[in-house]
Amino acid sequence: MNLDDLRFAEDFHVDQVVEFGTYDVTEAEVLAFAEQWDPQWFHVDVEAAAAGPYGGLIASGLQTLAIYQRLNILAVKWAAIAGRSIRDIHFLRPVRPGDQLTGSLLVEQITPEPERNRALVVTAGQLSNAEGKQVLTLKVDAYLHLSRAAMTA
Amino acid sequence: MNLDDLRFAEDFHVDQVVEFGTYDVTEAEVLAFAEQWDPQWFHVDVEAAAAGPYGGLIASGLQTLAIYQRLNILAVKWAAIAGRSIRDIHFLRPVRPGDQLTGSLLVEQITPEPERNRALVVTAGQLSNAEGKQVLTLKVDAYLHLSRAAMTA
Repeated sequence: MNLDDLRFAEDFHVDQVVEFGTYDVTEAEVLAFAEQWDPQWFHVDVEAAAAGPYGGLIASGLQTLAIYQRLNILAVKWAAIAGRSIRDIHFLRPVRPGDQLTGSLLVEQITPEPERNRALVVTAGQLSNAEGKQVLTLKVDAYLHLSRAAMTA
Repeated sequence: MNLDDLRFAEDFHVDQVVEFGTYDVTEAEVLAFAEQWDPQWFHVDVEAAAAGPYGGLIASGLQTLAIYQRLNILAVKWAAIAGRSIRDIHFLRPVRPGDQLTGSLLVEQITPEPERNRALVVTAGQLSNAEGKQVLTLKVDAYLHLSRAAMTA
């Protein structure tokens, strides 16, 4: 990777907002994801789900999280060291085939550790559907490299 | 689905432990998952990752979570209504191609709501690698149907 393309902790400020692109949820992908990772009937059985409480298939919450991460990574080339934790994931509404999701994150906290050229960065993220209703909220704690200059020093 | 196969909230007790099967993490799957959902260089670029701080590819934390969910769902046919939240996900150690993961969950809390034939069930889960070191811990809050008898009443 090229260091110039990466976004270091020093490039962000608290209260900064990053807007994401959009993601179209398809029935084929809902089925494929759930068959592999979350084979519960309301995620993998079209007919049973249609007769069930949601009136149709709903996406695995894990897939919703994965869509969040994809949109996040496509929006920002984080100079990431490692994700440490994810807190407070709320699945607020069902995600269904045909939904178009988008989202954003807010930089809540940046705790620099210059002696290790890193910072713990806390982001609060959300995904919403085409009606503007939130389907997911979460907080992520991740270590980023702090400074571009220190990478090559 | 057959109601007799499902495990209702009434079938569990606080402090119950459920042991999971095992999951073998392959390089092909680490790459495929990350290319789709978490395309960061230490998850998708074998050569760069080999020269990087982890000395090789590491799995996306999202994939580790997905493995947890797969092992969970294969171990227990939950009479699930919906996942509500996931709290306190900690990625404790890298997961690498070649790792064999297993895990378990502990039923921490069951809050019945008999008027709605449901219960909020809190589980604390973990995944460990073949050396017995934990790679993931988390807590899940999910609504289950409370009683088998009430489903057909």
